[in-house]
Amino acid sequence: MNSYDNVDSSISKEVPMDATLSMGGNTHKIPLKLFQENRRRLAKNLKLKHVEKGSIVLLEGGNDIPLYDSDTTYLFRQESYFMWAFGITEPGCFGVIEVDTEITHIFIPKFPQEYAVWMGKILEKEEWSKKYAIENVHYVNDMPVVIKNLNPSLILTLKGINTDSGYYCKEAKFDGIDNFKVNNTILFNEIADLRVFKTDYEIEVLKYVIEMSSAAHRKVMRSVAIGKTEYQCESEFLHYCYNIGGCRHVSYTCICGSGHNASILHYGHAGAPNDRLIKEGDICLFDMGANYFGYTSDITCSYPANGKFTDDQKLIYNAVLNANLTVLNSAKPGISWADLHILAIKSLLDDLKKGGLLKGETEEMLKAGVGAIFQPHGLGHLMGLDVHDVGGYLSNNPPRPNHIPGIEKLRTARILAERMILTIEPGCYFIDHLIDKALADPDLSKYLIPDVVNRFRGFGGIRIEDDVLITKEGAVNLTKVPRSVEEIENWMSGKDDSKYKKFD
Amino acid sequence: MNSYDNVDSSISKEVPMDATLSMGGNTHKIPLKLFQENRRRLAKNLKLKHVEKGSIVLLEGGNDIPLYDSDTTYLFRQESYFMWAFGITEPGCFGVIEVDTEITHIFIPKFPQEYAVWMGKILEKEEWSKKYAIENVHYVNDMPVVIKNLNPSLILTLKGINTDSGYYCKEAKFDGIDNFKVNNTILFNEIADLRVFKTDYEIEVLKYVIEMSSAAHRKVMRSVAIGKTEYQCESEFLHYCYNIGGCRHVSYTCICGSGHNASILHYGHAGAPNDRLIKEGDICLFDMGANYFGYTSDITCSYPANGKFTDDQKLIYNAVLNANLTVLNSAKPGISWADLHILAIKSLLDDLKKGGLLKGETEEMLKAGVGAIFQPHGLGHLMGLDVHDVGGYLSNNPPRPNHIPGIEKLRTARILAERMILTIEPGCYFIDHLIDKALADPDLSKYLIPDVVNRFRGFGGIRIEDDVLITKEGAVNLTKVPRSVEEIENWMSGKDDSKYKKFD
Repeated sequence: MNSYDNVDSSISKEVPMDATLSMGGNTHKIPLKLFQENRRRLAKNLKLKHVEKGSIVLLEGGNDIPLYDSDTTYLFRQESYFMWAFGITEPGCFGVIEVDTEITHIFIPKFPQEYAVWMGKILEKEEWSKKYAIENVHYVNDMPVVIKNLNPSLILTLKGINTDSGYYCKEAKFDGIDNFKVNNTILFNEIADLRVFKTDYEIEVLKYVIEMSSAAHRKVMRSVAIGKTEYQCESEFLHYCYNIGGCRHVSYTCICGSGHNASILHYGHAGAPNDRLIKEGDICLFDMGANYFGYTSDITCSYPANGKFTDDQKLIYNAVLNANLTVLNSAKPGISWADLHILAIKSLLDDLKKGGLLKGETEEMLKAGVGAIFQPHGLGHLMGLDVHDVGGYLSNNPPRPNHIPGIEKLRTARILAERMILTIEPGCYFIDHLIDKALADPDLSKYLIPDVVNRFRGFGGIRIEDDVLITKEGAVNLTKVPRSVEEIENWMSGKDDSKYKKFD
Repeated sequence: MNSYDNVDSSISKEVPMDATLSMGGNTHKIPLKLFQENRRRLAKNLKLKHVEKGSIVLLEGGNDIPLYDSDTTYLFRQESYFMWAFGITEPGCFGVIEVDTEITHIFIPKFPQEYAVWMGKILEKEEWSKKYAIENVHYVNDMPVVIKNLNPSLILTLKGINTDSGYYCKEAKFDGIDNFKVNNTILFNEIADLRVFKTDYEIEVLKYVIEMSSAAHRKVMRSVAIGKTEYQCESEFLHYCYNIGGCRHVSYTCICGSGHNASILHYGHAGAPNDRLIKEGDICLFDMGANYFGYTSDITCSYPANGKFTDDQKLIYNAVLNANLTVLNSAKPGISWADLHILAIKSLLDDLKKGGLLKGETEEMLKAGVGAIFQPHGLGHLMGLDVHDVGGYLSNNPPRPNHIPGIEKLRTARILAERMILTIEPGCYFIDHLIDKALADPDLSKYLIPDVVNRFRGFGGIRIEDDVLITKEGAVNLTKVPRSVEEIENWMSGKDDSKYKKFD
């Protein structure tokens, strides 16, 4: 089911198109209508589900997180469901949507006037209303009274599990909510499913952040050098995205693996903080994505640090690129994501066979789990306000598959549909731990040619990750980076500037 | 009392000087001995306090914080007390110090081997021991058994309130701790007080991060331009600190106020994210400090965006600089920080009087609270592993003063002593809210010359913030940035490169 349809006339006041959020300069102007459209889609779907007349949706935004016991905080990031519905970038708020009328209320913290010294002018309710184009603004303190006056027949709150993390989302609460009829089972599926399908407004924001991240990747490709540390490349990426693109956050900790580190899927964490010196002969696998007002991107580029592929690097790179392009050309509405995962793995196995690393029937290898030795992760994932976006395994979706080894790692097994945005990210890694295990297991080792596989130990890995939009005609690749061996070598040597959109 | 003395011989094994933490390249190598010395100082002081023979100290490190319900996390930062004692940069750990012998144990998370695919090689206990130069490494799961075998007569845990935030620090707990005798009242005062006095090793790290931040400020001063947004300056600072200095974090959200925003003390937060365009005639007040392995810096530079001071800008700038230098020249062991606050305010009032903004007796104005109209914050604060460092108001310190308006904002009123590191940060701001209030209050308005004060509305503000070390001879300024009007104008025009240490 495609949950997205153009929304027709509504009772709530139209948000003007010139009301926007942006970081100034040439950064993308996000129309606040984006959030009104999301609220309308939600209200419409809830009405289609025949929720009681007089129901309201209640969501709670995020709060500042202190750095332990200190008076400093982590840089604030808004909770994604709340952002999706209200577009508010500040902590400490709640929001209400009246389902029948789509009329919206937000509840904001009330600060004493003295706070102006520290925070700047304390905005009045009318100023919040204008800033976020929301009709009704109240103070959080007044929630019990305001909601009582709305006299809702039912309060819909959000409770559901994130299938990537295992964590529950934050269910809104306020003093006195127990005096109302509350339902926390209806909302989650509806809103999570709507988040899967991007509106035109959302597609524009995602295009912006993906193109900005692409430009930053291109910049890094040209600044990488033997003798630099990996984190200097991370720093270059962060600076480009913020300085040029107004992206104050990235969507996840940058993974900047060089050499052997390119085989560590989530390299870059506190225990391995991108602190290795890049050496001659290294492959770089840089997985980095900017974030613009919550909207994410997630792009991986893999290339030789010195700008010139060796034969072995070409072999593995082209095998992964082939898998990537095969999926890109096959992805379209109606196709199962799980089937595309298998398609990618088969393509990879075929090419590794041609390259002399494997022997045997592809279908047999697939079932035995040879693919998962070299690509121990899923083909890709939904992407939106979370980098691993919600809605992967909702109650009415295909369940988590497990018919071949490794496929259980997929973050969704949904049937593709228009307006989904996903990553396509096949990879091939040489992970000692997995190779050792495979060589010790007769059911797997019979497919491996040990001398050749062992030659690749220490190689690291290749991942080619694109962000794509599913349209009626198929997948549209929104990522704009050099991808073929030739394109990469040309780009890194300073040629071929023409085909990319310039931001700086 | 100066709690720091050279530590004499000890029973625990000496950490070799070549065991270090760093970000590679030319970044500062922190000897792991720094943390051993801290543990020894703590054990020694506890013995001086006659804690029971057989006591152990138990501290809990920080954990990863998920981004709401998602499977991404905030970039990890270690808890400061734990960092101070063990130097461990990774989440999920505990640490124990045997007070009698200073023998140290850490407890690390046990990851399944499969995690190697995502995190890289899972370090064995011996590898942790080597990485952090800690004698005894155990798994967190084994804590109850290991601690039982240590057979402590008493477990000292950390409980105390942070007087800047009002939050309690995190008290260590494990399953079965109730079977031991636990004391949570002794440790806090001892360790917080020790954190106030920096060892030679710590001073070296702080010098590094302060000099690196100084260089980044100098870089920003030369790249600031009319038509840039404030956050582009923030981005430049972050990039320099990370790319050149290996500082993955800053110590607090960058405050990059231009024009009127320069009067907002904590500008830069989510509601005002440094997103204004810098205009001709603006003052820039940039308060930014890098962070290196937890050690902080905190520097403010104020200058005209176009590189040339107007007469009015000179007037206010020199008034603040005068206050800054007066304090810098007066700060030394034995002097009360509260007295220095008053000295700074008096200096400022004198100069504002000379500048024609005020009239009346300085002493009278001080008591009436005229100073707090223009500088509504304290003179400065202790600095170390927290930017507003702990130990400001311990039970045996002078209590929070309140004998003149505004002085209650001071984060400490301690008597200065050798090895303290503090900020000296007088300021002068034109905050409409405070000026309006003062003009409406006859007890204050009689000191103001309204026409002149009103001329400065919209001016923003000036803060000059240095990080200084208290030595026997007085305060040593560790901050290396152009400070006089002439130095600033020269620096911004590209002259005068010679006197600063180059990092890049």
